[in-house]
Amino acid sequence: MTNKLQVAVLGVDVFDAAFAESDTPYTRLDWKPPAGGDAKLVDALFRLETECVDDKGDSLIDRANREAFDRLRKGRPVLKRVRPAHEVIAGLDKETILHAGPPIAWADMCGPMRGAFVGAVKYEGLAKDDAGAETLLASGKIKCRPNHHHRAVGPMTGMISHSMPVFVVENEPFGNQAFCPVNEGIGKVMRFGANDESVIANLRWIETVLAPAIDQALVDGGGVDLKVVMAQSLAMGDEMHQRNVAASLNFHKAVAGGFHAALSGNPEGRKAVEFVAGGNEQFFLNLAMASCKAIMDPLRGIPYSTVVTAMSRNGVDFGINVSDLEGEWFTAPCLKPQALYFPGFSEADANPDMGDSAIVECFGIGGMAMGAAPAVVRFVGAGGAEDAYRYTRTMREIAVGPNPDLPIPGMDFIGIPSAIDIRRVVATGIMPVINTGVAHRLPGVGQVGAGIVTPPMEIMRRALSRFAEKRLGKCGR
Amino acid sequence: MTNKLQVAVLGVDVFDAAFAESDTPYTRLDWKPPAGGDAKLVDALFRLETECVDDKGDSLIDRANREAFDRLRKGRPVLKRVRPAHEVIAGLDKETILHAGPPIAWADMCGPMRGAFVGAVKYEGLAKDDAGAETLLASGKIKCRPNHHHRAVGPMTGMISHSMPVFVVENEPFGNQAFCPVNEGIGKVMRFGANDESVIANLRWIETVLAPAIDQALVDGGGVDLKVVMAQSLAMGDEMHQRNVAASLNFHKAVAGGFHAALSGNPEGRKAVEFVAGGNEQFFLNLAMASCKAIMDPLRGIPYSTVVTAMSRNGVDFGINVSDLEGEWFTAPCLKPQALYFPGFSEADANPDMGDSAIVECFGIGGMAMGAAPAVVRFVGAGGAEDAYRYTRTMREIAVGPNPDLPIPGMDFIGIPSAIDIRRVVATGIMPVINTGVAHRLPGVGQVGAGIVTPPMEIMRRALSRFAEKRLGKCGR
Repeated sequence: MTNKLQVAVLGVDVFDAAFAESDTPYTRLDWKPPAGGDAKLVDALFRLETECVDDKGDSLIDRANREAFDRLRKGRPVLKRVRPAHEVIAGLDKETILHAGPPIAWADMCGPMRGAFVGAVKYEGLAKDDAGAETLLASGKIKCRPNHHHRAVGPMTGMISHSMPVFVVENEPFGNQAFCPVNEGIGKVMRFGANDESVIANLRWIETVLAPAIDQALVDGGGVDLKVVMAQSLAMGDEMHQRNVAASLNFHKAVAGGFHAALSGNPEGRKAVEFVAGGNEQFFLNLAMASCKAIMDPLRGIPYSTVVTAMSRNGVDFGINVSDLEGEWFTAPCLKPQALYFPGFSEADANPDMGDSAIVECFGIGGMAMGAAPAVVRFVGAGGAEDAYRYTRTMREIAVGPNPDLPIPGMDFIGIPSAIDIRRVVATGIMPVINTGVAHRLPGVGQVGAGIVTPPMEIMRRALSRFAEKRLGKCGR
Repeated sequence: MTNKLQVAVLGVDVFDAAFAESDTPYTRLDWKPPAGGDAKLVDALFRLETECVDDKGDSLIDRANREAFDRLRKGRPVLKRVRPAHEVIAGLDKETILHAGPPIAWADMCGPMRGAFVGAVKYEGLAKDDAGAETLLASGKIKCRPNHHHRAVGPMTGMISHSMPVFVVENEPFGNQAFCPVNEGIGKVMRFGANDESVIANLRWIETVLAPAIDQALVDGGGVDLKVVMAQSLAMGDEMHQRNVAASLNFHKAVAGGFHAALSGNPEGRKAVEFVAGGNEQFFLNLAMASCKAIMDPLRGIPYSTVVTAMSRNGVDFGINVSDLEGEWFTAPCLKPQALYFPGFSEADANPDMGDSAIVECFGIGGMAMGAAPAVVRFVGAGGAEDAYRYTRTMREIAVGPNPDLPIPGMDFIGIPSAIDIRRVVATGIMPVINTGVAHRLPGVGQVGAGIVTPPMEIMRRALSRFAEKRLGKCGR
């Protein structure tokens, strides 16, 4: 018997070719150097693990992240009302308009965001046409602020202006509120940058017919526990970012009687019922976003916690917030989604990633819960059922824990991967997967596709460096 | 080198112990003798395969079953109306009451079936109390007929009487109609044998409020394609026998606007909307049954086809119909389901298997499509997600084909196993799995659990013997 050479190859791939050509059998291990091989980050990760410990040697960061995870699980978002934004959002005067993503000035905005701002200015009656709106916006008299600075979120461009009705979701155990506008339906809509008369008329109908009827149903029925709706819908094939088919129906189910009564005898009643009870399959997206925002806000500012409390994009920059680094944005240019485009469109038409909607992935649904929604994987062009399961299994590696409150039946009832830990993201190189709609890069065109996207890796690394800088050497030992 | 003994064991298990105790490695193959080792059936199966062929040697039976499968796939059940039974069901005079399962006389009925008959007699005003109803039924003046003899189906006891509103489902490409009563909700209901005043009052409310409003919505909107609803709901975690959560919502979605309009200003409107839009999660079961009945009826009477066109139980006997043996029932005593019982109940309380609902398994949903509904597997006490997938994979072995019109996303979009072939059932010993509710054996108590059940094997064997007797020696060669 000869002693045969046994070869395992890992890391860089320069040796593969050599062995592949030889007769020597070799095995390639699926291993990558931690933190992409960045020595400073590897050192920071190691020191955070060894130095940030208490007297007993237990990790202060792990403990803080468990606290964050506990708060996440305790969260119970209840839809209480639908009210005009200025009534419930502090600081929303007539000249302030809120947008998705990290802060950005009018001059720096992408096409669809500019289109949406023009639309919002017209909707509020601050200008009577596009030219007037653009002049006003260029004058600097309109304050442009991120939704996240006002406890709010909005999909895609994310517009919230003074008169616009917003869902008021209260995280009952903590008492904090979160806000999101009412979903406008599909087609020509302001969230994708459209702003013509039909868009404004639709928003006015939501303001005067739909929102008051939902509000009346909520006052009548005492609110809707949206965590229950999310758990039911996850078991019905929705991940609640790109698929809200079941969730929209389950929400209607929760208010059906009161909603019918509120609209009884109203000539617009039929249209309103059709809109909520099925005509608009993404209706629940905005409720999922408000729920996740309400759940995630109490996780902000936990000392030593490396959990991501928000991921958000303004169409130019992708920004994240991290619990222990509350008040700071880590930003870098948005990536373009890997998408399936609608007929007639291609990647050349796509605006980079946009919207506050990635708050749902912070909680653990959307791209994190792809395993619950194999049909979505096809819709966004990312494979079959096994791929869906694989996405969710992979996301478990960067989450603090599986969340047993939202089990995925098709994956033997494992919980969704909740609370993204930037340490694990940086160490493994696995980025959170976000399911997203894709807007045309020009104002006024609308949606051109749907796909998946990740944050740019550098913001995760930069946030971890900042965290290490803040905490290393001061970990209390 | 020694020549080692390699052993494979199959069939009877008497050798296992001997090898298990020896050092000789052995492999047990998962093989059973065909047709349970019944030499006559094995011979019949063999002769049917070799003798029932055309000039080119192609199987007449396979061809007939492909024709059956094609008709099944072509079926498009559309809900047209909700009308009083006597208006649409031929021969349903005031003294005729239809029931689930194969034919049975009053004297032979099980407890819950008797309870339901007493209720139906009271509902029709033919007697004013239970004693009067029982006297009348015992007198033989009430004609008791199987639903299946009137193109109808009903869940559990399956009562259809003169005034009762029924769904009218038309299989448009074929023009045949099928009928099923409106689901009564859960709790104390006639289908489980309850018959007190609350049961009668609920049926009256369905007759006077709910059914006319759904009918108006249907006339208004032009009918609902129930195949579309079934396909959508299968992708949302329903198998549509024990779980109709998504299907009920999807049905409401299809009629939402017209249903709202029909009930606008009606003081009972709110209750009716709540009933259909979510309060009754099994609402769609009856629509699934009518759809499958409408789809399966054109498969009756195809010469040489060994496809099961109905499986049906009256609480005493389980009966099946087979395409080529149209007009004949093959019956044997019903089995008791393997069930999870509600608190306070046990198998001792259970009535044997009952209802026409197993028509859905003939089409390929319900127990056949368990892989689409892992949550149901838990509800009926039959395991986890992998078990759900395994059930459906196993059912593929006895079905003519996977039906691509109803794909299961969680199983990489494979189609449901459609059209049960008695040859394969007998050859493999694999029985169709039926998801079912379980009634208390006494009249008036109601549902006590839910579980899975199969037909008794002997009716499959008897049907195959009869088919062989009819066709062997006369196969046209």
